[in-house]
Amino acid sequence: MRPSGRTPDALRPVVIETGIAKHAEGSCLIRVGQTEVLCAASVETRVPPFLRNTGLGWVTAEYGMLPRATHTRGDREAARGKQSGRTQEIQRLIGRSLRAVVDRKAMGEMSITLDCDVLNADGGTRCASITGAWVALHLAFQHCVRHNIMSQVPLTDHVAAISCGVVNGEAVLDLDYQEDSAAEADANFVLTGGGALVEVQATAEGAPFSEAQFLAMLDLARDGVADLVARQKAAVGL
Amino acid sequence: MRPSGRTPDALRPVVIETGIAKHAEGSCLIRVGQTEVLCAASVETRVPPFLRNTGLGWVTAEYGMLPRATHTRGDREAARGKQSGRTQEIQRLIGRSLRAVVDRKAMGEMSITLDCDVLNADGGTRCASITGAWVALHLAFQHCVRHNIMSQVPLTDHVAAISCGVVNGEAVLDLDYQEDSAAEADANFVLTGGGALVEVQATAEGAPFSEAQFLAMLDLARDGVADLVARQKAAVGL
Amino acid sequence: MRPSGRTPDALRPVVIETGIAKHAEGSCLIRVGQTEVLCAASVETRVPPFLRNTGLGWVTAEYGMLPRATHTRGDREAARGKQSGRTQEIQRLIGRSLRAVVDRKAMGEMSITLDCDVLNADGGTRCASITGAWVALHLAFQHCVRHNIMSQVPLTDHVAAISCGVVNGEAVLDLDYQEDSAAEADANFVLTGGGALVEVQATAEGAPFSEAQFLAMLDLARDGVADLVARQKAAVGL
Amino acid sequence: MRPSGRTPDALRPVVIETGIAKHAEGSCLIRVGQTEVLCAASVETRVPPFLRNTGLGWVTAEYGMLPRATHTRGDREAARGKQSGRTQEIQRLIGRSLRAVVDRKAMGEMSITLDCDVLNADGGTRCASITGAWVALHLAFQHCVRHNIMSQVPLTDHVAAISCGVVNGEAVLDLDYQEDSAAEADANFVLTGGGALVEVQATAEGAPFSEAQFLAMLDLARDGVADLVARQKAAVGL
Amino acid sequence: MRPSGRTPDALRPVVIETGIAKHAEGSCLIRVGQTEVLCAASVETRVPPFLRNTGLGWVTAEYGMLPRATHTRGDREAARGKQSGRTQEIQRLIGRSLRAVVDRKAMGEMSITLDCDVLNADGGTRCASITGAWVALHLAFQHCVRHNIMSQVPLTDHVAAISCGVVNGEAVLDLDYQEDSAAEADANFVLTGGGALVEVQATAEGAPFSEAQFLAMLDLARDGVADLVARQKAAVGL
Amino acid sequence: MRPSGRTPDALRPVVIETGIAKHAEGSCLIRVGQTEVLCAASVETRVPPFLRNTGLGWVTAEYGMLPRATHTRGDREAARGKQSGRTQEIQRLIGRSLRAVVDRKAMGEMSITLDCDVLNADGGTRCASITGAWVALHLAFQHCVRHNIMSQVPLTDHVAAISCGVVNGEAVLDLDYQEDSAAEADANFVLTGGGALVEVQATAEGAPFSEAQFLAMLDLARDGVADLVARQKAAVGL
Repeated sequence: MRPSGRTPDALRPVVIETGIAKHAEGSCLIRVGQTEVLCAASVETRVPPFLRNTGLGWVTAEYGMLPRATHTRGDREAARGKQSGRTQEIQRLIGRSLRAVVDRKAMGEMSITLDCDVLNADGGTRCASITGAWVALHLAFQHCVRHNIMSQVPLTDHVAAISCGVVNGEAVLDLDYQEDSAAEADANFVLTGGGALVEVQATAEGAPFSEAQFLAMLDLARDGVADLVARQKAAVGL
Repeated sequence: MRPSGRTPDALRPVVIETGIAKHAEGSCLIRVGQTEVLCAASVETRVPPFLRNTGLGWVTAEYGMLPRATHTRGDREAARGKQSGRTQEIQRLIGRSLRAVVDRKAMGEMSITLDCDVLNADGGTRCASITGAWVALHLAFQHCVRHNIMSQVPLTDHVAAISCGVVNGEAVLDLDYQEDSAAEADANFVLTGGGALVEVQATAEGAPFSEAQFLAMLDLARDGVADLVARQKAAVGL
Repeated sequence: MRPSGRTPDALRPVVIETGIAKHAEGSCLIRVGQTEVLCAASVETRVPPFLRNTGLGWVTAEYGMLPRATHTRGDREAARGKQSGRTQEIQRLIGRSLRAVVDRKAMGEMSITLDCDVLNADGGTRCASITGAWVALHLAFQHCVRHNIMSQVPLTDHVAAISCGVVNGEAVLDLDYQEDSAAEADANFVLTGGGALVEVQATAEGAPFSEAQFLAMLDLARDGVADLVARQKAAVGL
Repeated sequence: MRPSGRTPDALRPVVIETGIAKHAEGSCLIRVGQTEVLCAASVETRVPPFLRNTGLGWVTAEYGMLPRATHTRGDREAARGKQSGRTQEIQRLIGRSLRAVVDRKAMGEMSITLDCDVLNADGGTRCASITGAWVALHLAFQHCVRHNIMSQVPLTDHVAAISCGVVNGEAVLDLDYQEDSAAEADANFVLTGGGALVEVQATAEGAPFSEAQFLAMLDLARDGVADLVARQKAAVGL
Repeated sequence: MRPSGRTPDALRPVVIETGIAKHAEGSCLIRVGQTEVLCAASVETRVPPFLRNTGLGWVTAEYGMLPRATHTRGDREAARGKQSGRTQEIQRLIGRSLRAVVDRKAMGEMSITLDCDVLNADGGTRCASITGAWVALHLAFQHCVRHNIMSQVPLTDHVAAISCGVVNGEAVLDLDYQEDSAAEADANFVLTGGGALVEVQATAEGAPFSEAQFLAMLDLARDGVADLVARQKAAVGL
Repeated sequence: MRPSGRTPDALRPVVIETGIAKHAEGSCLIRVGQTEVLCAASVETRVPPFLRNTGLGWVTAEYGMLPRATHTRGDREAARGKQSGRTQEIQRLIGRSLRAVVDRKAMGEMSITLDCDVLNADGGTRCASITGAWVALHLAFQHCVRHNIMSQVPLTDHVAAISCGVVNGEAVLDLDYQEDSAAEADANFVLTGGGALVEVQATAEGAPFSEAQFLAMLDLARDGVADLVARQKAAVGL
């Protein structure tokens, strides 16, 4: 039995509320259990220098955590004067994951920045960020279509992410903080709506893990992401 | 007539929701019109070096704005590698304002950090931060009392803040962003529940302003703060 | 009786010596009691990006304190790698105060930077900086007029500043360091030659202060600034 | 046919030369094709604060690239004043990978830092770093045993890493820079000598990839790592 | 003929005024022609960690230039967030030069920091800093003797510095900015009162220079420093 | 007798191996005894802003030391977030020294950056860097000639550097780390192939040194550099 009483393949309750960042072209607050991330998409009509005159658009992400999103207060990165390695790793992952389903040629020379800010953390913040960022991005593209900046939403598919872990030798889906702390291995899977792989990150926390354990996690992730994609559809009105 | 249709002495709707930061000892989300600030109080059982062995406690504040809290996206301060002068000015103000009503001797050698993070900005974020921070601080002190860390809440009074401005020659209360941009002068008043002054900051935006205009703003502020104090009482159950 | 033997409404001796920074277009050393600030104005024939093609000029300020301007040596900000919040707050105040009396349209697309560097500190350094910076600015504008860069000095009025405080319950003018450390409240008033308000900053150091105390400080400041304006006139030859 | 003429499952030539960093307790220069990384292990007899009095040792890594290790010169990170997100991601990966095979209890309260500096880059620098760092670490532990600081080498297994990719739809082993630039997906696999998984990182470069492609890469990696482990054994005299 | 009308072996007028930094244990303003440096010595009763329990004292220096000490305004290093390479080079030189004549054992475990801040620059600022810093240091040691912190001034000799250059093929003493810009070589010589060498730095600005030219500069420097030492004696009352 | 058994005028064995940085236009690994520096020259077809449209080229240098190049591991400057004063001093020296023998007009508006990275340090790293950088620079210019970017190598002479010191009162050539730590004075001499002086830096480590000692060091340096120049010729095929 998991500490939360969930079965190994059970997601935590997922709620996606849109329109939270009032000035953003697209935004949502995604709740996965006690984890809450505010995702906001900001559209700009120019691209970074390396893309000028290429006809391609750009999608990137920034990630942050409010100092008291966690059990004990963490330093404010702005006050410390730099983003941690963890923060940079996560925001690079979010950006790559979203770009995998954007038709950057159809998008044209525009940029969208996805800000993912964690209000409350209880495990799985990077996965919730990716799942929520897709919703914010879709809404921002809808905004561009409504304002005749684009003719259609230049997304080729959904993308969503979920964590898995090996706890007491068994593969389980969607770890909360307590389980994450005790896991022998943890993994993050980023998949498309069509079930293809966008990113896989699996890490042994203590002893190395077996290929069978890895494949069991991948199986759980596939179903979990399918669920998340259904929530995304509902949130953006598809 | 003000752009919002309010009379010169009208506050925007104020809502204070507590318990938003799930791990914090005290927290609230304060909404003043479209401005939203998440205030979280974090208790630590040690003080900064300059207070060790003095028997005195410490209360300090940090302030931040999510990048897309504003009309156009601002740089993330953590990514830029430093807090702006404006941010530092505001967080120093919040800290000073709160300390003015804390009995630091009764508090004992403990520290409380107040994180004020702006989720949506529509003018008056520093004032909303002070008003909300008092609520978060009171709740954190209540938490300490419940856990027998203190015998009673070491606050000597309320403290709350409101902006005023001179717009088209007339003093008005609680400016939103649109009015703030057009104001000839703006001022922030931090007052106690008893009506004493904690901090006054008034600035000419274009031409200098007169003493009469200044006093008219002070009058408006006094009533506005009285209203805010009533909301604080309700929020913390006094 | 004040520690210095001054009456409550007495300024410290003020001396303004011009031409100290030999390369600057305008400069002065202002002494207010033991406080000494070197103010230098540097003219540049371009404006920051946000003002290009607006026809408006720019006036800004930077503030610093030599490490041993104070009783005990302070860190050198250049060595620490950043300006403190206090420094940024002060330099923003100086810039705002000066801009309030500059006709930026008449000035044209030029920039003037006012460097205010404290050689010796004994209270009131930000006020001395503002008062001295006006002198340096006027001299720099005179330089521009002499070199046919401008047809006349684009200043609409004087601006000068003085601190006040509440010490032992009484309002006093122009605090030195010893009084400042003991004050129950302190305030900085920035006024024009015509007596209008440019900036008011009043802060409770311990307990909050009353409106009557605040108004008593404002009265003292008005007379103090009138005195300072007379010194400015003499310094620039008006 | 691959650009290099290699078969899909062929490693590039691997050479490991030990004793290169003359002052280090263990070191090697690992060459994988044209990629060259200098790995040096430095032993210290203290641990970071979070491990004091736990009886556990610490192993961590830092990664760098000489500015002209690459086709076009990159900025020197020391001159730019910060490590890139990529650098931090890689050094965190190296540290985690090595710790997975260290018996930190047997090691005792000591620290070893693994510096991995890329002299020449032609793809696969993070994998070469992990493989070489294991050799440097083993040599450093041998040094500790010879000096009676430890009774035996506290490593539970080998750890080595290899990249794979999907190029023209086919899974291939050990990409050089040219292939890496053209790959549809790339992955890094960190495995133990016993074949267990320590870390898996797979990323779609353009379109998402299939599970079959992923598993084909994993198969190649298993054999590649077995080869690398044999080179490690030879290098450390096992 | 030199631009200034001086003969090749002529120093500019030198004035040393003491007691300028009112809080410092020792200070002077040294003027060498139009160059002005404020030198302040700050005494602390502790040493850096690497000297604890060695019985040795420490003398170090920091150097800065006010932004408008120069013809065109330079960036403020505190605002830019770091000291330039030139600044660091100079302050390291000042510290080394002074330590060469300090009996650090006689001094005991105390630290003195010499702040050398350039108010006006017209060539030779590093040399003026060294010469003035010796005066500030001597005065600070006198202060310590007067307060029974030391039994006598722990200086073994004077130290002073002067620049030389090769201009139009001829060696000249004490370059001002105009000559310095045109010099084929420039050199800084730091000598003791007894004429021994503490530091020599000679640099070809364009073409390399000959040994004969170098020796001619050294001859000029010897006489120049003897003059400076006489001014130091007068300034500290020897 | 010197610790190494060398006579006072004996260089350590010098080996220069070219072509080490595979992507660089010119490179070498220079070994002077146990000191090893990798020097790489990178050609770019643009110049820094201050040289645009002047027709002049630019040569600059950056210096670094691998963390474990030294007896005990040093901090990685990229991780610490800034280059030390020592690093900046050295890289400025290398750049100046090389520019003294470059015909920047003949070079045209191009830039060459010389990266000097110390793999192993045993004294004399800045001198080895200069000597090796000349080789890398010559090779890069040869590359430009071969590719018809220049008509001939725009170097007017060799430049090479060697350290000297006063140890036990006697002048000795080419100090290793052990001697350097014990030296009463140390000096670095940068000379051209023709024997002219480019840079002289001599520093008293303890007591000041005499002119006779200085001249003895200069004599040793002259012969030492002549030897190094012969190695440079061999390395670049002259």
